[in-house]
Amino acid sequence: MPLPERQIIARIRRLATQSPASTRSAVVRGIGDDCAVLRLGPGADTLVTTDLSIEDVHFRRDWYPAGFIGRQCLTRGLSDVAAMGGTPVAAFLSLALPARLPQRWADEFLDGLLALAKTYRVVLAGGDVSTSTSGVIADIIVVGRVPAGRAILRSGAKPGHALYVTGALGVAEARIKTLHARHQAELIPSQARVAVGQKLIGVASAMIDTSDGLSTDLSHICEESGVGAIVYVPALPAPAGIDFALHGGEDYELLFTAPPRAKVPARIAGVPISRIGEITRDRKTWVADARGRLHRLQPQGWQHFSKQS
Amino acid sequence: MPLPERQIIARIRRLATQSPASTRSAVVRGIGDDCAVLRLGPGADTLVTTDLSIEDVHFRRDWYPAGFIGRQCLTRGLSDVAAMGGTPVAAFLSLALPARLPQRWADEFLDGLLALAKTYRVVLAGGDVSTSTSGVIADIIVVGRVPAGRAILRSGAKPGHALYVTGALGVAEARIKTLHARHQAELIPSQARVAVGQKLIGVASAMIDTSDGLSTDLSHICEESGVGAIVYVPALPAPAGIDFALHGGEDYELLFTAPPRAKVPARIAGVPISRIGEITRDRKTWVADARGRLHRLQPQGWQHFSKQS
Repeated sequence: MPLPERQIIARIRRLATQSPASTRSAVVRGIGDDCAVLRLGPGADTLVTTDLSIEDVHFRRDWYPAGFIGRQCLTRGLSDVAAMGGTPVAAFLSLALPARLPQRWADEFLDGLLALAKTYRVVLAGGDVSTSTSGVIADIIVVGRVPAGRAILRSGAKPGHALYVTGALGVAEARIKTLHARHQAELIPSQARVAVGQKLIGVASAMIDTSDGLSTDLSHICEESGVGAIVYVPALPAPAGIDFALHGGEDYELLFTAPPRAKVPARIAGVPISRIGEITRDRKTWVADARGRLHRLQPQGWQHFSKQS
Repeated sequence: MPLPERQIIARIRRLATQSPASTRSAVVRGIGDDCAVLRLGPGADTLVTTDLSIEDVHFRRDWYPAGFIGRQCLTRGLSDVAAMGGTPVAAFLSLALPARLPQRWADEFLDGLLALAKTYRVVLAGGDVSTSTSGVIADIIVVGRVPAGRAILRSGAKPGHALYVTGALGVAEARIKTLHARHQAELIPSQARVAVGQKLIGVASAMIDTSDGLSTDLSHICEESGVGAIVYVPALPAPAGIDFALHGGEDYELLFTAPPRAKVPARIAGVPISRIGEITRDRKTWVADARGRLHRLQPQGWQHFSKQS
């Protein structure tokens, strides 16, 4: 049996950083953030992120229209670039399709993906195509740009910094759990917060997207920054309830920290910003309820479908 | 039924280039070459290539040791950078593993991949990890660098240019067909010709790697350049025979063209270079036998295992 994903990533990271090549200056930031940061020339840094979407692991083909799935695949990559404060430039698609798949499904998948790419002025610049022996497999790679040295990493949070989140939390997960997306009128695609991320350069000290759910993604910021956090439950933007807001994934909102004196507007690029907590020294994550009582917050983010069922 | 891979790629390319965003200057070269070429800053261009390796499509787990498979996955990406004359900088791995897979297999796969990365001073800088509902799926992304405007594309061949190839052709395919790689002593890993590719900048007019086999990869150069070609059969470096040399894949040699007055050495970076033909105006590909008779050469390159069986 292979290790859980978290342990596999930790192992790859350890092995990869044992290599003396990891000191190479072109890789400013490797494994352990939303994107890698490469310094390939002066002036701008290059961001690279990859996201696998596998049928019956990340999505079910009978739950969503093909165009919606194509759109969501690209959203995952765009959101990782947003979480660094970057501008997406080009996308790459490695796509494996089962022999029995209707061509129409593949066309609609591509249409959805390319329509979203156009919205963000991102070019689909390459990729790979293969036969799949099981379901649809799509690996999306997004390359972006950020001013040199200005990428907002997960590792910049410091005790005393405030914790913020864009938009509303738990909406996507609530939709998955309660509707199974059978009512297509309810299909509201998640937005990658690219414009918000760009405006947070020079403001945010650390940032991540909430694709795995607040509790899990906050733990990533805390681990990378060597800090802890308290989340104020009454402050959460939680239209679907507190549990979905704390643990629901696939929202693609931005979770970020900022020093106490930073000026963080109530709205950025039309998206509401909520101050939901603070960063602490103790390396643990807590929630504070309406009465101010503290409870431990454990990462319980989004689980793949295959593990739920 | 989905279309054959070639038609899917053509369709994606057509859809992707309909977008007005495709005129964006950052993408110097998109779909249709070994790598995309991005101009993200002055001085150097950025190369990006993605290659899917899927169990029972691209490899069989019982035919090769895990470390050999990991190594070959990365070789595919390094070879695409080599075929542009570039220097690989960073690699990304999107890896999906079946629940039943022994952890030892995953470790050996990574060891093989990372050992090769170290040889080429390439950093594994990120990726994604997931559960697979079928076999092992690995998507390798390699990012490289090339001096601005100097990437060797597939589209630069002109009538009268000579046709060259590095090393020997058909060796990998002959090994697959005759040994099924059961004799591990026979496992000679393919090399990505990175150092040769770099030295061909300013010499070669068009270049591709022979991963799909000479007949198929030559047709790609001819299509992108709007030309034809004649291959001299007696000049082929064909230790496993002419058929394997013409159609065998997975060799990762470089196939390139050069103007008649270019000085192409007999060896570059220790690798022998063979002059094997010439570029013509007629947009068809031919082989000339030992008596000088011409026969049509049809693309019959490497077929995935799933189609052979």
